[in-house]
Amino acid sequence: MKAQHLEALLADVAAGRLAPGAAMDRLRHLPYEDLAFARIDHHRALRQGQPEVVFCEGKTLDQVVAICERLAAASGTFLGTRATPAMAEALQRRFPGVAWNAMARTVVLAAPDVPAPTAGPVLVVSAGTSDLPVAEEAAVVAEAFGTCVERLVDVGVAGLHRLLSASDVLDRAKVVIVVAGMEGALPSVVGGLVAVPVIAVPTSVGYGAAFGGLAALLGMLNSCAAGVTVVNIDNGFGAAAAASRICRA
Amino acid sequence: MKAQHLEALLADVAAGRLAPGAAMDRLRHLPYEDLAFARIDHHRALRQGQPEVVFCEGKTLDQVVAICERLAAASGTFLGTRATPAMAEALQRRFPGVAWNAMARTVVLAAPDVPAPTAGPVLVVSAGTSDLPVAEEAAVVAEAFGTCVERLVDVGVAGLHRLLSASDVLDRAKVVIVVAGMEGALPSVVGGLVAVPVIAVPTSVGYGAAFGGLAALLGMLNSCAAGVTVVNIDNGFGAAAAASRICRA
Amino acid sequence: MKAQHLEALLADVAAGRLAPGAAMDRLRHLPYEDLAFARIDHHRALRQGQPEVVFCEGKTLDQVVAICERLAAASGTFLGTRATPAMAEALQRRFPGVAWNAMARTVVLAAPDVPAPTAGPVLVVSAGTSDLPVAEEAAVVAEAFGTCVERLVDVGVAGLHRLLSASDVLDRAKVVIVVAGMEGALPSVVGGLVAVPVIAVPTSVGYGAAFGGLAALLGMLNSCAAGVTVVNIDNGFGAAAAASRICRA
Amino acid sequence: MKAQHLEALLADVAAGRLAPGAAMDRLRHLPYEDLAFARIDHHRALRQGQPEVVFCEGKTLDQVVAICERLAAASGTFLGTRATPAMAEALQRRFPGVAWNAMARTVVLAAPDVPAPTAGPVLVVSAGTSDLPVAEEAAVVAEAFGTCVERLVDVGVAGLHRLLSASDVLDRAKVVIVVAGMEGALPSVVGGLVAVPVIAVPTSVGYGAAFGGLAALLGMLNSCAAGVTVVNIDNGFGAAAAASRICRA
Amino acid sequence: MKAQHLEALLADVAAGRLAPGAAMDRLRHLPYEDLAFARIDHHRALRQGQPEVVFCEGKTLDQVVAICERLAAASGTFLGTRATPAMAEALQRRFPGVAWNAMARTVVLAAPDVPAPTAGPVLVVSAGTSDLPVAEEAAVVAEAFGTCVERLVDVGVAGLHRLLSASDVLDRAKVVIVVAGMEGALPSVVGGLVAVPVIAVPTSVGYGAAFGGLAALLGMLNSCAAGVTVVNIDNGFGAAAAASRICRA
Amino acid sequence: MKAQHLEALLADVAAGRLAPGAAMDRLRHLPYEDLAFARIDHHRALRQGQPEVVFCEGKTLDQVVAICERLAAASGTFLGTRATPAMAEALQRRFPGVAWNAMARTVVLAAPDVPAPTAGPVLVVSAGTSDLPVAEEAAVVAEAFGTCVERLVDVGVAGLHRLLSASDVLDRAKVVIVVAGMEGALPSVVGGLVAVPVIAVPTSVGYGAAFGGLAALLGMLNSCAAGVTVVNIDNGFGAAAAASRICRA
Amino acid sequence: MKAQHLEALLADVAAGRLAPGAAMDRLRHLPYEDLAFARIDHHRALRQGQPEVVFCEGKTLDQVVAICERLAAASGTFLGTRATPAMAEALQRRFPGVAWNAMARTVVLAAPDVPAPTAGPVLVVSAGTSDLPVAEEAAVVAEAFGTCVERLVDVGVAGLHRLLSASDVLDRAKVVIVVAGMEGALPSVVGGLVAVPVIAVPTSVGYGAAFGGLAALLGMLNSCAAGVTVVNIDNGFGAAAAASRICRA
Amino acid sequence: MKAQHLEALLADVAAGRLAPGAAMDRLRHLPYEDLAFARIDHHRALRQGQPEVVFCEGKTLDQVVAICERLAAASGTFLGTRATPAMAEALQRRFPGVAWNAMARTVVLAAPDVPAPTAGPVLVVSAGTSDLPVAEEAAVVAEAFGTCVERLVDVGVAGLHRLLSASDVLDRAKVVIVVAGMEGALPSVVGGLVAVPVIAVPTSVGYGAAFGGLAALLGMLNSCAAGVTVVNIDNGFGAAAAASRICRA
Repeated sequence: MKAQHLEALLADVAAGRLAPGAAMDRLRHLPYEDLAFARIDHHRALRQGQPEVVFCEGKTLDQVVAICERLAAASGTFLGTRATPAMAEALQRRFPGVAWNAMARTVVLAAPDVPAPTAGPVLVVSAGTSDLPVAEEAAVVAEAFGTCVERLVDVGVAGLHRLLSASDVLDRAKVVIVVAGMEGALPSVVGGLVAVPVIAVPTSVGYGAAFGGLAALLGMLNSCAAGVTVVNIDNGFGAAAAASRICRA
Repeated sequence: MKAQHLEALLADVAAGRLAPGAAMDRLRHLPYEDLAFARIDHHRALRQGQPEVVFCEGKTLDQVVAICERLAAASGTFLGTRATPAMAEALQRRFPGVAWNAMARTVVLAAPDVPAPTAGPVLVVSAGTSDLPVAEEAAVVAEAFGTCVERLVDVGVAGLHRLLSASDVLDRAKVVIVVAGMEGALPSVVGGLVAVPVIAVPTSVGYGAAFGGLAALLGMLNSCAAGVTVVNIDNGFGAAAAASRICRA
Repeated sequence: MKAQHLEALLADVAAGRLAPGAAMDRLRHLPYEDLAFARIDHHRALRQGQPEVVFCEGKTLDQVVAICERLAAASGTFLGTRATPAMAEALQRRFPGVAWNAMARTVVLAAPDVPAPTAGPVLVVSAGTSDLPVAEEAAVVAEAFGTCVERLVDVGVAGLHRLLSASDVLDRAKVVIVVAGMEGALPSVVGGLVAVPVIAVPTSVGYGAAFGGLAALLGMLNSCAAGVTVVNIDNGFGAAAAASRICRA
Repeated sequence: MKAQHLEALLADVAAGRLAPGAAMDRLRHLPYEDLAFARIDHHRALRQGQPEVVFCEGKTLDQVVAICERLAAASGTFLGTRATPAMAEALQRRFPGVAWNAMARTVVLAAPDVPAPTAGPVLVVSAGTSDLPVAEEAAVVAEAFGTCVERLVDVGVAGLHRLLSASDVLDRAKVVIVVAGMEGALPSVVGGLVAVPVIAVPTSVGYGAAFGGLAALLGMLNSCAAGVTVVNIDNGFGAAAAASRICRA
Repeated sequence: MKAQHLEALLADVAAGRLAPGAAMDRLRHLPYEDLAFARIDHHRALRQGQPEVVFCEGKTLDQVVAICERLAAASGTFLGTRATPAMAEALQRRFPGVAWNAMARTVVLAAPDVPAPTAGPVLVVSAGTSDLPVAEEAAVVAEAFGTCVERLVDVGVAGLHRLLSASDVLDRAKVVIVVAGMEGALPSVVGGLVAVPVIAVPTSVGYGAAFGGLAALLGMLNSCAAGVTVVNIDNGFGAAAAASRICRA
Repeated sequence: MKAQHLEALLADVAAGRLAPGAAMDRLRHLPYEDLAFARIDHHRALRQGQPEVVFCEGKTLDQVVAICERLAAASGTFLGTRATPAMAEALQRRFPGVAWNAMARTVVLAAPDVPAPTAGPVLVVSAGTSDLPVAEEAAVVAEAFGTCVERLVDVGVAGLHRLLSASDVLDRAKVVIVVAGMEGALPSVVGGLVAVPVIAVPTSVGYGAAFGGLAALLGMLNSCAAGVTVVNIDNGFGAAAAASRICRA
Repeated sequence: MKAQHLEALLADVAAGRLAPGAAMDRLRHLPYEDLAFARIDHHRALRQGQPEVVFCEGKTLDQVVAICERLAAASGTFLGTRATPAMAEALQRRFPGVAWNAMARTVVLAAPDVPAPTAGPVLVVSAGTSDLPVAEEAAVVAEAFGTCVERLVDVGVAGLHRLLSASDVLDRAKVVIVVAGMEGALPSVVGGLVAVPVIAVPTSVGYGAAFGGLAALLGMLNSCAAGVTVVNIDNGFGAAAAASRICRA
Repeated sequence: MKAQHLEALLADVAAGRLAPGAAMDRLRHLPYEDLAFARIDHHRALRQGQPEVVFCEGKTLDQVVAICERLAAASGTFLGTRATPAMAEALQRRFPGVAWNAMARTVVLAAPDVPAPTAGPVLVVSAGTSDLPVAEEAAVVAEAFGTCVERLVDVGVAGLHRLLSASDVLDRAKVVIVVAGMEGALPSVVGGLVAVPVIAVPTSVGYGAAFGGLAALLGMLNSCAAGVTVVNIDNGFGAAAAASRICRA
């Protein structure tokens, strides 16, 4: 490890085995940033069981398996998003404990002996059934990051009663992730009902002037409800990552 | 009148004063479409008191006054939208009966002896105080077109209780015009609460990614509520014109 | 039912079986919005034979069949839009009475004993043959919603005579739905010829700078004809839903 | 109060002064949502000293003063964003205790006897000097919402050393708000350095292909760093509102 | 024919078989526009051998064949654009004389005894080999419309000498159609070299920020050369139609 | 003149005053393109009275006057577009014969003894009164380029009869320039009525989703009428330049 | 050669075999630009071993082979970009020495006896593994153009330490090509670390609001680092061509 | 200096005054990046006379003066871009040696005893007179950065002869900066004429579909000429910074 390298160097200077000028030269070329990120890695170590994440889209099956093998060897755990069924199958052959969520397109190898999650709960709210894949990605990732998750589905704003009757689950959330396509109005309504942070996820659900999620994205960015922040279109992973950071904050 | 011209021509043919071939030639070049639009004008005559409309924006004060004088001479009434205070003042000097609505930017010279409106009511709902100029334009125009108007203001979706407590006024509307900027989510919510046509008017209220009303426009076009149709950004006039047609349908 | 729950609660209070404070608590958490939408459901009940609508695009064949079975069990009727031939076949196997319109991509299970439609007529006008699928979707949906429908096809603005010779059918319409792609100019021309509401449907027909229907959409939103409102690109369903609301208004 | 109305109604039923059926009717029309939002208001009451917020842009001086007077009378405190110098001057004449921050364009009337903030700290990081007005708006609002705030300015990514040397302040933040225009790359870099939630605020700083903040907005939405969420262009207020919710979560 | 109907009507009036008032009524409902377009059709008759045009894209093979059969029966000629090989094959089976241009994607059934074209020449200039399908569509259509055509290929602006050495062919053109993708700069250069009308056709050739031809389209619309007009992306047909009108003007 | 330079050089070679190799060197560096454009200039000379054109927008008053003085000295004539009243006044002080058209924003110094124009006529059609400045620019420029001009104003598609009754003027045009804002539908309708080239000029007239003329531009590019070509938004000059080239073709 | 033609012509004039006037005529029509580009070709000849480049995308296999055969015959070398495996296979059958890089999609036939490259080095930096195809295209092209290339991969800004530890390779580069998708922030960071020209290549890597590389493109154009220039999305070839020109400058 | 701090620390360790563990802690928090950028600053020192640059737009007069005073005190030189006349006047009062270029909007305080520039020349080519401010900014900045500059103005592609006759100046350039608005075609043409790097600068010159420089930007990004790279709209400074880096490469 780099920290050990540095300690050894300083010990050499203290013992007179290395002149200060020579140490100076070596320090100048030492990849200093490793120090900085060893610190960050230390932070990561404190969060037990949080797997490294592999974005599988655009990678070959072989690449995905190779990366997951390296992660499993290093930490005993990994999380893959946007995985294909073939990738899931290959990983399950290699690691029998891998959990595959077909709707969320996730593969998870849980770390052994992970304590049950206590942070949260994160509430994942989705507007329509077509938004479920993105909502499930958010839910699976948040769980893999060690937070409790609750779900509230099919509560689009054109039928408000479905949302309003769910005040209990809304009230106990620590963070709410709201997943919606088309006009993306749901985060504004939820943002007015709760007092906790709301993370809005626009989806590419819709057609025509939905422009692949642009309409929902713009709607959410212009939300008249305070406390709403937004992630990229279809980015359930990003919402879950932010929600987990909030639950740990 | 063109109809009289045609009658005279036919009478000439019947009386032998004009050969069929010569009549054929004259008919071929007669501005036939005037016949068609005399019919449409007749429709207009049936709608008592509906004034001709002048879009004042981009016209000079002199042009606006001249056009209004011509309309007043022909029909005793006019309606101007997007008028400036100076235009209103000039018109009021010329026509003491002109009503100027500073917020709606409208000038109205009511026809004499217009019966009280019985169509409607049209309900004009607005999301925020900044949307009021567009909402008022819609309201004034709808009234000038002979429909009753009711108003519901400041009922944005981030505070649903304000809208939900107005079920009485929502229930008795024949058409609802919903005016909203920013994310433009209000028409979807209203569309889920009522069973009558909803006309959505996006406004240019907002900043940044509101892109001058584009976000609200896209949101409304992608509304998940059935029965919602949309007009141009800030087009209170167009919404009122459509609502009046609906009330007369 | 929720209304029954509330009646029972009030009866308990009246009978002294429940203290007002305890009733207060239960009322506070009662899903009040069910009351609101029971009212709306009552409205729906009044509209005999109007089927629930399933947007099939993006759903699996199994999901579509399951939803339709639930709807058929509850109401004896359903309407599906954007259905694939495979979905239609599966539904027809399950419900022999299902009508499949391949051009409109609709499946309809008509309610038994529905009276013949009397509302309307809604006139569906289309600019070119490529616009027919969207126009047919509008026509089928409007019929399923209980309105009479008439059709006027292939009357694009580059050959005005085809439209102008159809004054009879234009004159008797209660609402006109105008379906057009490319430059989307037809609603403006129709809007100048009729005195009833015009609902414009831009289609994704075209190429290059048509940008998937954007050109037609913008054209329609900027129509110089009063009384024209617009729905999303290719949204024949939405136009029909709005037209049906207008016919019932 | 509505809760009192409901209690009285139930007492009337219990006392036999009101039949259950009549109570049923009145309950059906009672603005039920007030119950829901009384609860929310109660939440607000628990957050001592948090002022109501007035978005001054697009309002007249008289409107702003009138709204602030109403807020001050109700709660002894208010916060106005996007205020003009003239608004600030008028409010300071009326309320000598008003604090005016010219760069942030905020006016604050602090509630009396507000305890010193303990939540946070929120760290507000800005890329360039032109981003300071948005950053200051975020800082002032976060403070008004009861969170401690720290600032880190002029640490754009073209000179990384300025940011990397600030590890102390980065390490102790509970939330980081990152404000940047032009290419908006700073949130990605910060997101890789810290383990807490990062809220990215694109600004309209830049020219040409910055397109009024669009370039920065898109960059932030596509951040390769996990845990970054985004608000509207120049929306310092929204970032602070979300950050405050996070600190209280 | 409608003209005959009108003549008969006038004869009836002249003969006293029809009262002027009854004639008036029938004239009011006569589809007058047929008169107008009979005139236009007469214009078409004067242009010997110009076939009707079928835009095949988005039509089924059966539809294309049916339409072409109708056209061939009426006029002995047709022109189809954007035809697939299967359409061409089917048409050639039905009409052995059909000419299929695979690059231009056109099918032409020439009218018998068409005189050799004398109008023009139209010069079709293309920037790169990938622009050839659009250029060929323009060339085939212009020939089918009765104009002489010359071609100049692969003369993109990055190698000006290829264009500059073709001054002879440039000089004798009556109209120049310039087809280019990517940055679409060629029409500006050609527009500065010739004194005749230049019709610019942007193509969808390119990638990335070409945005499907948008870059070329915008470039051509902003041409600094006077006398350049523009048609839709990939619209070789439209350019040829306009060029043919110019040659006949 | 360059041609004279070349003749002298060749004469020197013929006379032995210049060795072929030295001539070769001088030819290699001779600005050869001047030969090419001397030819073009010769073309220009043939078109009597056609002035050089100055685009005044973005130039200072002094620059405009200086350029016009140079043009007047060289050719006795100039044409300036987008001139301000101050520029017009300054030019009229300097050249009493300058004609200033305030609506078209043009300044013209006519060449002495220009024969009356015989080419054309070019018909300039405009949809609304707000389109008149662009239409007038086209008309003035076309006249300055030596073509006869006719005008048809206020014939928007929402009132077709105004256009249809103008068949005489439509029939005698050699080219039609159609100027329209908002949805830009007029060129399609005109294109279906005439057999000559139609040049469409979108204007920035409109608001909201007109997006500064983009809606009209896209509509015109997607015109379903053959023979329509398009120029830049508000580019009356460009349309006139192309129309004049067509009339001379 | 054209230069020889000119020499012969001048010799004829000197010898009296050609009159100056006749020479004048022939010179006027001589493709003068060939002189200009013979000079440019000479420049190309000076750059030993630089192959002509074939953009294979959108060309048929036969076209690609034919073009490459012509190039190989003329110069013994060629370079093809965006080649398919089938193209590579066909070319390798025809030219056994062809090198196929599957990731870069390039085919190279090296010129015989090309000296080892001495220019550069060009450093190609890529942000993520998905950016590698574009980065490799840049690297292969730069090598084919005769410059030394070094590579630095997977150094995205969310993990700065990977970049900062590579100061050696950064320091010795003569030009840096930075390839990145998503938010495209890497060129700004690199631009702040080096003192040499930086060429930024946005890639289409990403999803949602990446809009096919638009986000990265806008980010790079707005880079706050001086000395960064940008090429088209995914244009590794263009970056390498520019880098090679810089190394030779 | 930081390097001195590090040397002192190592000396302390060597001397036993500081334990290795304590040194380890201090090193961990030492702002390591200052080492990295001290190196970069050293690079800057090697480039004699290159001033620091102040982007004045959006800064107050006082801010600009204060920053320039600090720069002058540190280095005896500064360069300000986008300065207003008032800023220039204030700076000239404070520093009599300041050179103000009104067209380029630059203020330069030259370092004393700067040797005459030897790098380059950079050739700045501009398409039209309206592009001159951006071109001049590029020229002034390049000179301030120590490179020789040549200028070629008003050589737009619609009159190619003006460019082609300037082969001498094109041939001797080491880098060419091409500044153009409207369709932005000039860089493609120049890129085909020279063998050195071309930096394209789109300008916001134009109107309508120029969209503030977007058309020129897209055109340049899609240039068919190899070796062209692009900077932001109107970014003359950025082009000069890159060109200077190239000249020093």
